[in-house]
Amino acid sequence: MPELDAVLSKIDSNLDQSIENLFALLRIKSISTDPGYKSDCRKAAEWLAADLQSIGFDATVRDTGGHPMVVGHHQGDGPHVLFYGHYDVQPVDPIELWETDPFEPGLVDMGGGRKVIAARGACDDKGQLMTFVEACRAYKAVLGTLPCRVTILFEGEEETGSPSLKPFLEANAGELKADFALVCDTNMWDRQTPAISAGLRGLTEEEIIVKAANRDLHSGYYGGVAANPIHILAKALADLHDADGSITIPGFYDGVEETPPDVLATWDGLGRTAQSVLGEIGLSVPSGEKGRSVLELTWARPTAEVNGIHGGYTGTGFKTVIPAQASAKVSFRLVHSQDPEKIRAGFRAFVKERIPGDCSVEFINHGGSPAIQLPYDSPLLQTARKALNDEWPKPAVMIAMGGSIPIVGDFQSLLGMDSLLAGFGLADDRIHSPNEKYELSSFHKGQRSWARILAAISQQ
Amino acid sequence: MPELDAVLSKIDSNLDQSIENLFALLRIKSISTDPGYKSDCRKAAEWLAADLQSIGFDATVRDTGGHPMVVGHHQGDGPHVLFYGHYDVQPVDPIELWETDPFEPGLVDMGGGRKVIAARGACDDKGQLMTFVEACRAYKAVLGTLPCRVTILFEGEEETGSPSLKPFLEANAGELKADFALVCDTNMWDRQTPAISAGLRGLTEEEIIVKAANRDLHSGYYGGVAANPIHILAKALADLHDADGSITIPGFYDGVEETPPDVLATWDGLGRTAQSVLGEIGLSVPSGEKGRSVLELTWARPTAEVNGIHGGYTGTGFKTVIPAQASAKVSFRLVHSQDPEKIRAGFRAFVKERIPGDCSVEFINHGGSPAIQLPYDSPLLQTARKALNDEWPKPAVMIAMGGSIPIVGDFQSLLGMDSLLAGFGLADDRIHSPNEKYELSSFHKGQRSWARILAAISQQ
Repeated sequence: MPELDAVLSKIDSNLDQSIENLFALLRIKSISTDPGYKSDCRKAAEWLAADLQSIGFDATVRDTGGHPMVVGHHQGDGPHVLFYGHYDVQPVDPIELWETDPFEPGLVDMGGGRKVIAARGACDDKGQLMTFVEACRAYKAVLGTLPCRVTILFEGEEETGSPSLKPFLEANAGELKADFALVCDTNMWDRQTPAISAGLRGLTEEEIIVKAANRDLHSGYYGGVAANPIHILAKALADLHDADGSITIPGFYDGVEETPPDVLATWDGLGRTAQSVLGEIGLSVPSGEKGRSVLELTWARPTAEVNGIHGGYTGTGFKTVIPAQASAKVSFRLVHSQDPEKIRAGFRAFVKERIPGDCSVEFINHGGSPAIQLPYDSPLLQTARKALNDEWPKPAVMIAMGGSIPIVGDFQSLLGMDSLLAGFGLADDRIHSPNEKYELSSFHKGQRSWARILAAISQQ
Repeated sequence: MPELDAVLSKIDSNLDQSIENLFALLRIKSISTDPGYKSDCRKAAEWLAADLQSIGFDATVRDTGGHPMVVGHHQGDGPHVLFYGHYDVQPVDPIELWETDPFEPGLVDMGGGRKVIAARGACDDKGQLMTFVEACRAYKAVLGTLPCRVTILFEGEEETGSPSLKPFLEANAGELKADFALVCDTNMWDRQTPAISAGLRGLTEEEIIVKAANRDLHSGYYGGVAANPIHILAKALADLHDADGSITIPGFYDGVEETPPDVLATWDGLGRTAQSVLGEIGLSVPSGEKGRSVLELTWARPTAEVNGIHGGYTGTGFKTVIPAQASAKVSFRLVHSQDPEKIRAGFRAFVKERIPGDCSVEFINHGGSPAIQLPYDSPLLQTARKALNDEWPKPAVMIAMGGSIPIVGDFQSLLGMDSLLAGFGLADDRIHSPNEKYELSSFHKGQRSWARILAAISQQ
């Protein structure tokens, strides 16, 4: 592919300028949570729209109820991809812990040929999004076009919970819907090893309130005869797991698939053991299903966790009360095609079965979202994987994530669009903390990676 | 017993005067919790000391750190009894709900020959203690002496937790120790049926704090692999009871005796069913050990109750946290010779067995006290029972109490003295509430009952 080689060469030769471009964006103090930086947020959006225009995107700043969006369109043949990033950044407190000015970016030499870009937003997410923009810039410089049709969406409220995003997606679904999305604010496995997230766990959140007597009771008068809602609640919650750590709600595992053995073997080879994962939080024994690795447990297995419990007297000292009610907040992490509402219904039935006839239970729905799971052998993942393998010293690993990235769920549910989750951050990039950095190798080889991925996608 | 008959006649003929005596005491506003009534409390103590002196007691007002005590001694042959009562009363709020002035006592005609004494303290405890004093007065009037040696102890802080009582008992143990105590602030079963309490349950109070990770965790990253202390706690608490409602702590029932069948038969005859006891609190199914009546469960069986539980996020909304720790307050009601500290040790061992090796548990001792149990066939109880049977339309019932009366435990532990718990209050006397009353029949036949009991005791 001589065309791709030319683009890669252009990326190499243009590195210094691409760093300057990123630095210009990093200097804008687009702290979305602080109203004092409202105009800086708009300035960042305007800077990005102008930059996209300069490489041939039909780009505009779009107002919302909060900080504006930037939307850019570039026509092209082949698949249509939507690239998502955010230009807003976290606050910089505590400022005294920064070794450099968070809004005066610089290159820091770490020795041994390693350099990092130091600034607030260097990685999250300005560095990551400009990695993609620079790949586009190189394509345009060499070929005058992009290898496929590209739409770009940048938001300015990711660090404040993206309140405007869903309405914007809904209002502009026709404009934004593509064949799939590229979501970049994820990490590599390590500095040599890129990673693609194929799965994100879903979530069902539910609160239960067990009600017994019509008032709080004195345990001297009623102890041993009146139902104690804390006992009923504790029993129902204790029943959720069997001795092997499996969840006992009938039908709970419907839709849960086993992870392919070759994927599990890859995970086992990553060296993230129970000892290393649990050691840093002061634990040593995996608590979940027996016979599965910690990575499988957190990436590819569903869970039931009590996130909060309350009942009776919990102040200083003691009060011999039998409370009228007790409550718990319970969440389920879901995988594959588990249905959040079926899980909720199953849990409610499970709890109701354990409520004595003279007591009652109230449920509060705190929401839910399905898991995201691309087949590990899907063309999109395999194409991206091969492109990454061509660039990096070690082959890309297919991973999953235990938590959720709301945007990916929104793309799926509102636009019916899968996401490719590939990014070049590292676990030690200190995002949200003082001295945030982004490896220069991530910025440079990340651009080359995106160039390879776009080329590979165009040939799908 | 012509002597006793003469005393009973004296009580009958002196009823109007005895009412006047009680009214004089009821007019004193001895509200112990309100500093504004401090001098009224002392006035009540002085009134009582003077009244006891008037019937031959060597009686004095004794200062404490709070409201004073009254101690009176009357020599006599035969057993030495200590009579306990309290002259302080509850506040009268909400005053607007009183139908009469709480400190202007009066007789209210309820129709059908029934009259009640209406005033704050009419029952609790001025009426009850004067019931005993009037019996003594009649004895003195008729015979010039008492049938046995009597010491009287009145305190003025019962409604505020008796802070001075224990130190006073300790400091004056030699003076106050008797063969047994008479404690009067208990109830009859109903207006026709007197009652003697043979048992009071004891208590062990303990708090447990289960600790897992060294910090709160995000359930997306750690759910399914990190130990959740709420789960561990819920399981340990759920394990406390088996499916039959029995407590599963090894050795828990050591020292628990079965209640004699004839006593259980009496209780069954009292008509207090699961329906009647639970119905008023909105429940219907006894929660404790299967196959036992509600009276046995609350009077004569030990319990384990969780009085409070807390862990994780319990505010509005939802937070997918796996907390670092979770805690519960657990109390055990004890019967017969169960040892509060052995129960505590057994519970701690039970919980520790259920803590995974990488987690820990902390215990906080919130105190404990043994149960009080007089054998149902003890001479003291049988003597009193017979005396009561001679007075009332229906025979006395031997009952027990689910809660504790601290003074009874203090008499046992500090003075090595059993207590006879017999009083003439009724469940509907509205003690601590507006429109407190005391049945005139309780006051009158109560005096006659004490006269009979003292006579019977003197012949033991």
